[in-house]
This record gives sequence, structure tokens and C-alpha cells, in this order.
Amino acid sequence: MAEQDLFEIIYSTRAMRRLKPDPIPEETLKKIIDAGIHAPSGGNLQDWGFVLVRKPELKQFIRDHYWGMWQQLQGSRPLPADLPPARRRLMASAAHLAEHMEEVPVILLACAKKVYPAFASVGQDRASVATVHGSIYPAVQNMILACRALGVGTVLTTIHCCFEDELKQKLGIPADVEIAALLPLGYPQGRFGPTARKPVEEVIHWDMWGQRVVG
Amino acid sequence: MAEQDLFEIIYSTRAMRRLKPDPIPEETLKKIIDAGIHAPSGGNLQDWGFVLVRKPELKQFIRDHYWGMWQQLQGSRPLPADLPPARRRLMASAAHLAEHMEEVPVILLACAKKVYPAFASVGQDRASVATVHGSIYPAVQNMILACRALGVGTVLTTIHCCFEDELKQKLGIPADVEIAALLPLGYPQGRFGPTARKPVEEVIHWDMWGQRVVG
Repeated sequence: MAEQDLFEIIYSTRAMRRLKPDPIPEETLKKIIDAGIHAPSGGNLQDWGFVLVRKPELKQFIRDHYWGMWQQLQGSRPLPADLPPARRRLMASAAHLAEHMEEVPVILLACAKKVYPAFASVGQDRASVATVHGSIYPAVQNMILACRALGVGTVLTTIHCCFEDELKQKLGIPADVEIAALLPLGYPQGRFGPTARKPVEEVIHWDMWGQRVVG
Repeated sequence: MAEQDLFEIIYSTRAMRRLKPDPIPEETLKKIIDAGIHAPSGGNLQDWGFVLVRKPELKQFIRDHYWGMWQQLQGSRPLPADLPPARRRLMASAAHLAEHMEEVPVILLACAKKVYPAFASVGQDRASVATVHGSIYPAVQNMILACRALGVGTVLTTIHCCFEDELKQKLGIPADVEIAALLPLGYPQGRFGPTARKPVEEVIHWDMWGQRVVG
């Protein structure tokens, strides 16, 4: 495979929610996870685990809960009539994914130990959570970039947190572990391409919050 | 600049804690942040901000609190005598960074809005936190990879969470924003190179937690 420039990959990685049912080779899945575990983790503890769900019955279980929760959340917050077109398209593709989740070949669950001992044991719970999440979402991002480089589509989702206990029970995930992210994996129906972002100048603060000009 | 293969970058990105005081050009800093904001965020809200601290007085403030907290944490948990050499080296370089934090040219603070409205407004607080952290740490990882590609050393740290309120007050960061990560940035004294990780087979679970063999 040709080399793929880091920045080209970063600039062309977008959420892919319409995915084909075609299987993904195991070597490709392993390469994605291997990219993930090369991310940093607090104290290099590597207290993570990655569940690759492929069995139809398990995917159907996830879809039924995910789609049910999606409908419940939408019901409690109807879309405004004046929603911008780009946002309406995003919601439509997210709904498509939710309803057809069982059709993707693999559902990846990124899991992490819930506490970081060095902070939790001294009552620094905020630092513990930041370290746990700062040790699993970087791995998730490495996997998202690896997917892009390998032509696999995916999107970082968190709705499963609303039925996390049922999902953990179904898959035998221990009580002291959380499911940080759910990533459907599949070859995309659409194309990768550039993503729209606010200009970098609008998110940089020089020395002090709100300071937009170089000091 | 030559193309830099994504996987080569991922495999050779390690925590760099011994950094030179040499300044980093503003264009390089912007390119690092621009890589960050091309990461995904929940609902593409991009509710983030990146503070680039360069003023000596502010860096000294951070160093004094960080180093004080480091010593306090070490005092409460002395290192065991039989600590493996690799772990002892890690602790020594982390202590060096803590004590000399003000010498790095830039301290980057990755900040995020504390709640994700679509979940928080319906009482799904666990999903809200997961979405907030799942929207800022991927950006942090993109920035870590961009640093590596640009020859800048850094390391993801979270000790600042133990003095987050004082730090926010000092830098004028709003109450509804959290500082998710503190990244010292500087050209490294040492070299980038391969990182040691558990084999990928040990972190993959096929369909069910604990299932090590392909089903």
C-alpha cells in the first residue's frame, strides 16, 4: 500500500454513517486495533480492551437498543423546522445508521477501566476520569485514522452509554470497565473527503482565554 | 516537507518529557491546532478552545502548582523499591518535566464545554461526559500526531485537574469549560522511536469479553 501522509489523512477523515455489509478481513481489524494501542495511556497502563462484535444476534441486540434509544431521544427533542440543511443531512444519516446498525459487518466497542488508581486512591476523582478518558479516546482517534487509511468507514458514537449496563451484561464486560465508544465499521457507500471546520484562529487563545491576537 | 506515513507516525510517537526551551514558530503551532480541530466532535459542535501559554509568568504559575501537586502525590504514594527500570525511568523524566515545566516554550491547554446539551438536558449525564471527552481527546491525539510529524515533542498530562479551579481563574477560563489536557510543547532532547505495547491479540475480544479466539 502506498504511503499516506498524516495530514492528508487527518484532513480527509469524516464521519461515515452509510456503510456496506461486506466483511472486513481480520488482518485489517487487527491493524486498526494495533494503531489504537499505540496511543498513549496514563502511566502506560494500557488498561483497555476492544470488543469486535460480528455475531448477527449480538449486532441485532445492539441495534434494537440503539434504535430504541435514538427514537426516544428524538421524541424528547423534535428537530426545529428551521434546521440548517447540513445539520438535517447529518441527522438523517445518523438515523439511518441507528435503524440499520445490525447490517454493518463489525461493531467495535472501545472499553477502559473506570478508574485511574494513582488519582482515585487519593480522592482526585476529576483527575481520575480525565486520565481514564484521556487514555481511551486517543486510542479511538488512532483507530479512526487507521480506518480512513485502510478505506474503512466509521463514526465515533456514545448513545450506547444510555443502555450501557444491559450491553455490558450481554457481552460479559466486567463491572469495573466502561464502554467509552461504539464504532460501527464497514466499507463506506460514500466517499471520504474534506471536512468543514471553524477557522483555526477562532479556537486559539494566546496566553489568556479570549485573547485572539498573538501577545 | 516529505510525506509522512500515518502508520509510521503512529508507531513512532512516544511521550517526550525532556524538552528544549527553543521557541516554536507560530505557523507550526497553528498547524498543530488545525490538525486537532479536524478530529470529530459530538454533533460537530466543535465546543473547544486551545490556550497556548507562552508568557513566562503564566508558565511559572503552572509549574509551581504542577510541581507542588507532583510532590504531594509522590509523598502520598512512595515508589516501591522493586519498581521495574522502565517504570523508574518514566517517573524520573515525569519528575524532571514537572520541576522544569516553565522552561518549555509553550504549554497547550485543551479545553471543552463541560456538558453535551442533547444528553444532559434529558438527564443522561454519563452519555454527556462520554460525548464531551469523546470530542476533545480525539483532537488532543490528532495534535500529538501532528507534533510528532513536525518534530515537536509533547506528552498528554492530567495532573492540572488537581488545581483546575486556580488555573482557570488565572487564565480567565469560563466556569462552564473544563481543561481536559495539559500538553507541554517543545523540541525534544531525545529521539522519537518505537513504543512498547502489549500484543494486539491480548486486547481484542471477539464478540464476547474474554473471547481470545476468532469465533
